[in-house]
Amino acid sequence: MLPIVKGVLEGERRSLARAISIVDNDESESQIIIHQIFHKTGSAKTIGFTGSAGSGKSSLIGKLIPVFQTLGYKIAILAVDPTSPITGGAILGDRVRMQTIIDDDTVFMRSMASRGAIGGVSKSLRNAIRILDAAGYDLIIAESVGAGQLEIEISRVVDLTVVVFTPYTGDNIQAIKAGLTEIGDLYVINKADLAGATTLFNSILDLIGNTERKPVVLKASTKTGSGIKELALSIDKLINSAGSSYKEKEKRMLEEELKDMVLNIVELKLLDMLKNNSKYSDYIDRLVNKKIDPYRAAEELSAILLR
Amino acid sequence: MLPIVKGVLEGERRSLARAISIVDNDESESQIIIHQIFHKTGSAKTIGFTGSAGSGKSSLIGKLIPVFQTLGYKIAILAVDPTSPITGGAILGDRVRMQTIIDDDTVFMRSMASRGAIGGVSKSLRNAIRILDAAGYDLIIAESVGAGQLEIEISRVVDLTVVVFTPYTGDNIQAIKAGLTEIGDLYVINKADLAGATTLFNSILDLIGNTERKPVVLKASTKTGSGIKELALSIDKLINSAGSSYKEKEKRMLEEELKDMVLNIVELKLLDMLKNNSKYSDYIDRLVNKKIDPYRAAEELSAILLR
Repeated sequence: MLPIVKGVLEGERRSLARAISIVDNDESESQIIIHQIFHKTGSAKTIGFTGSAGSGKSSLIGKLIPVFQTLGYKIAILAVDPTSPITGGAILGDRVRMQTIIDDDTVFMRSMASRGAIGGVSKSLRNAIRILDAAGYDLIIAESVGAGQLEIEISRVVDLTVVVFTPYTGDNIQAIKAGLTEIGDLYVINKADLAGATTLFNSILDLIGNTERKPVVLKASTKTGSGIKELALSIDKLINSAGSSYKEKEKRMLEEELKDMVLNIVELKLLDMLKNNSKYSDYIDRLVNKKIDPYRAAEELSAILLR
Repeated sequence: MLPIVKGVLEGERRSLARAISIVDNDESESQIIIHQIFHKTGSAKTIGFTGSAGSGKSSLIGKLIPVFQTLGYKIAILAVDPTSPITGGAILGDRVRMQTIIDDDTVFMRSMASRGAIGGVSKSLRNAIRILDAAGYDLIIAESVGAGQLEIEISRVVDLTVVVFTPYTGDNIQAIKAGLTEIGDLYVINKADLAGATTLFNSILDLIGNTERKPVVLKASTKTGSGIKELALSIDKLINSAGSSYKEKEKRMLEEELKDMVLNIVELKLLDMLKNNSKYSDYIDRLVNKKIDPYRAAEELSAILLR
């Protein structure tokens, strides 16, 4: 057993942080870590928290934590940062803010950079969840700053997705555009003390009333504290009542993961083959000179590679 | 030659609309259409217009069009809609709004649904541009509603990317988060008549001053008309001065496209192989029962498939 894995299983924080970095950066040790902890996983419940910037997700999570702790959960938070696919840098403003809100030694918190490539987030997040799960955290919250595709990826990895809205103008339409109304299992109108909360609540109800899923819609206010306890209890109920549908989802997630990983392996092999194949640059020249069209070039080239 | 291709080459609008739908939906005819028009392409200039919802992109484009027409351009606009990867439906609100702004028979306008899968947009857009290019449109504007990954994809397909900001609170930070400051060749502070425009202008200058690229930053106001002509002239200058760097970009784009298409073909073959391989469900069962970890399963399975 790797020393870092021993540290993880003992819940030692520095090992946990390091192990999460390793899987997040997809370092070569990832494989060994996951291999050595995989059989210890499967008991944690996972929640995704999403919503546009300014919706007050971090504050809301901060208020929910004490209630979850009363219910006996050992909590970890993974903050998934939107990372630029170009510079690779993470924006840490929100994280800093969150750390000041959640000033609690019993809660483990870690930022993850969401790698540019779609699919990268799922892989990092799945493995980070496994590490925390093996370390004994039984409620893992993945929080992300609303950014379309990212939310959808996260919602596919967690047991329950909570979408946070606020009653300020535009959030409603923005959210629809981002497809947020389709990924949630539970919707919260945060800042319910503000004017417009009821209107927003009703329009969210209208929107998702047309869907087959019957997600829960609730109001809460981090300012007045109203609805916080009800929200925590609803989440607790949902993640524990899923039963067979949860097993089904887990299987589907593993299937998805296996498929992604196999495709990745094959893709890497293929890119390597392309790089070393002189036919590749021939085809590009012919494309540039319009001697062949992209469809035909792709077909011929893939036939050569698969031969 | 397909009748629809004949229509496209004659610039006949119904053929154009239908051909764009065909490539957007990736129907089987796409291949033949692209094959038959590919040698007629390569003269159009392409611009991507992006920015968050409410930044006034559509109005701005509406004001720029008459100026571009004065410069002699025949203009087509492709509006790329953010499509839900789940329902597949496009949100057409913005498009309807745009159609009322741009009420000009000489401009060809068409909405495209951006398919959920990343990479799907590039493919659709590249081929739609080719169709318009072959039809004689020499300035093609791809307009999209700000949504992170989508913008980046579009910026890789067009010659020039224009990012539109407005001086309302939050847009600045939102934009940084979405990585918008990295994809632009030209930045416009729209609604420059509003308070805060100068502050925003300066912070955008600050932000991109740290980058190696030296993009242009301008102010404009659709309301007062200030800066519109300057913006159009700047765009015209940039798309026509690129010279050798433009040739380089075109080659890089074709390379990227060929690689994507080859990977897609191989991926489809592989998924087919997976579906029909009994080992696949064996591995999933073993994963569910934690008898094997995902890394090992993926490696073993890909070795079986590639054998």
